[in-house]
Amino acid sequence: MNFLPIQLFDSESSTYTYILAADGEAVLIDPVDKHCERDLAHLERLGLRLAYVLETHNHADHVTSAGRLRQLTGAKTAAPSGCGIAPAEVQLNHGDVLRFDASEEIHVIHTPGHTAGSVCYLWRGNLFSGDTLLIDGCGRTDFQSGSAEALYHSVTERLFTLPEPTMLWPAHDYKGRSVSTIGWEKRNNSRLSSRSLEDFVQLMNNLNLPPPRLMDVAVPANRNLGLPH
Amino acid sequence: MNFLPIQLFDSESSTYTYILAADGEAVLIDPVDKHCERDLAHLERLGLRLAYVLETHNHADHVTSAGRLRQLTGAKTAAPSGCGIAPAEVQLNHGDVLRFDASEEIHVIHTPGHTAGSVCYLWRGNLFSGDTLLIDGCGRTDFQSGSAEALYHSVTERLFTLPEPTMLWPAHDYKGRSVSTIGWEKRNNSRLSSRSLEDFVQLMNNLNLPPPRLMDVAVPANRNLGLPH
Repeated sequence: MNFLPIQLFDSESSTYTYILAADGEAVLIDPVDKHCERDLAHLERLGLRLAYVLETHNHADHVTSAGRLRQLTGAKTAAPSGCGIAPAEVQLNHGDVLRFDASEEIHVIHTPGHTAGSVCYLWRGNLFSGDTLLIDGCGRTDFQSGSAEALYHSVTERLFTLPEPTMLWPAHDYKGRSVSTIGWEKRNNSRLSSRSLEDFVQLMNNLNLPPPRLMDVAVPANRNLGLPH
Repeated sequence: MNFLPIQLFDSESSTYTYILAADGEAVLIDPVDKHCERDLAHLERLGLRLAYVLETHNHADHVTSAGRLRQLTGAKTAAPSGCGIAPAEVQLNHGDVLRFDASEEIHVIHTPGHTAGSVCYLWRGNLFSGDTLLIDGCGRTDFQSGSAEALYHSVTERLFTLPEPTMLWPAHDYKGRSVSTIGWEKRNNSRLSSRSLEDFVQLMNNLNLPPPRLMDVAVPANRNLGLPH
């Protein structure tokens, strides 16, 4: 009787990886290369077979271990069809349902904005929001096919319309926050709760952030599931 | 539809605090003083009223925020009856069942060893094991009414007899591990899975560990729920 999301942290890139633990099988979302052994050890302790490794998008700040996990466990890899991650054998589109364990369902929600291909995953009332919606924030939209306008529409039309108690599990947090809810973000997210599209676009287009340190390494590596070319 | 344990970390003392998130109410286990605001913010984002703050034992390595949380939220505090935490209005004994939310039940398991009063809490197949059973380890038994012999009996007779898929959520981990299961620990725990009582007692009595840095501050403070005397 598990059926829990387990949240694991990479302190270097402040990335959250998730284990979706069902009865006999598990799914990993956004695993980080250097924590491959940690993640496998968790699966072993929980007695769970890895069914799928999912990416929410092509990450610019860390390298995935998806390819290596596939080699080591036989799990399938799945990625959003719009992310250019060609070696993933399952290419996911909006509305797709990924099944694992006996009857677990992961619903795919296409949420362009942080990148054009970004998706969120919904499982048992838990939303894994990647870099689309963060706790009291959102992903940046200034590189890699990002679009502030697209992100605004994705969040307000596809995420804020989910039931309010839906648990929000982001791909990053930089302030020690672990989890939120759709209801709280709708009412309180300082970037998105009460801003017009125009205001949001102006805000996002003037953040003037430096490029992610690992971008030139991570993006091409992640296109190949983190495996050497 | 929550009904999840949420694991939060204090990197200074490597302590895990847990939120037991039900539908409208929550319980906190082993909160740490300096994360009081973080924990309250989580409850607010989740839209949950704090029903109880629980201690697994009187901690020697950090100061609890239980008293402050009680002041700020009106939650009740509950502690094991054998831990000398007199200001906790609910004193828990082996076999007690603590109820919260509509019909949630937390079962109290007395597990002397790390301290004489230590308990574990069982909720929905999740065991919150305090410093009694750690992932591939166990709490020390060389101070504060600790007893290696008692810990051995507690673990082998009261924890290893739980269903094997029971999820094990410890109060500490020093190596990036988050969760385990009773089944894995029964088979693999390097201190407890295949050692006789005599071997275990000899091992524990020869660890020669330094006293916890904060012990002289933390133990008296925690007897008063972390509030000034």
